[in-house]
Amino acid sequence: MTNIFNLPVELPNEELFESLASSTNLLIERIISTGQTTPTGEWYDQKRDEWVILLQGEAKIAYLDNPAVTLKAGDYLLIRAHQKHRVEYTSSEPPCIWLAVHGNLQ
Amino acid sequence: MTNIFNLPVELPNEELFESLASSTNLLIERIISTGQTTPTGEWYDQKRDEWVILLQGEAKIAYLDNPAVTLKAGDYLLIRAHQKHRVEYTSSEPPCIWLAVHGNLQ
Repeated sequence: MTNIFNLPVELPNEELFESLASSTNLLIERIISTGQTTPTGEWYDQKRDEWVILLQGEAKIAYLDNPAVTLKAGDYLLIRAHQKHRVEYTSSEPPCIWLAVHGNLQ
Repeated sequence: MTNIFNLPVELPNEELFESLASSTNLLIERIISTGQTTPTGEWYDQKRDEWVILLQGEAKIAYLDNPAVTLKAGDYLLIRAHQKHRVEYTSSEPPCIWLAVHGNLQ
């Protein structure tokens, strides 16, 4: 049995993206963040919708056209395709564990 | 912000299925179980693949053609379309909180 809370003994300096299941039009991935943020002035602009839940840690996501949101464990949200957003904060103690589903959700 | 661990004050006697996000080919849902199991001799036989993670509680899933698996919080698995399975056990204290993604994952 595979457990999403099992982390590698040593985490890399970069965010860690791991595919848990995928097909042509759908990707389920785990993301581990340990303090990384989106560089100032940069925005994610994704082709697909992303449904994402934070399962451990604390984080803050900012939008270009909407108020920023702070997330704690269990909080989830839907980021529409091309909705510009950036990660403003991720906790490192404990690391952030995200579960993201990328696909067509509209 | 919506949190997957927030439960209704009163849970129904039946399992509770709630769509969190969906489109034609994709459904993300929360399932809350409080002791319910699949009736003896019955099997789920689903048209779509199901990726499912147990986020709270303990549960046991049996397969027609494979050994049963016991799940604790954070454990996840992929149930292929038409892979016959049944839920043999779900804890009620605490309730089981499942996150399921139904779609094409092959």
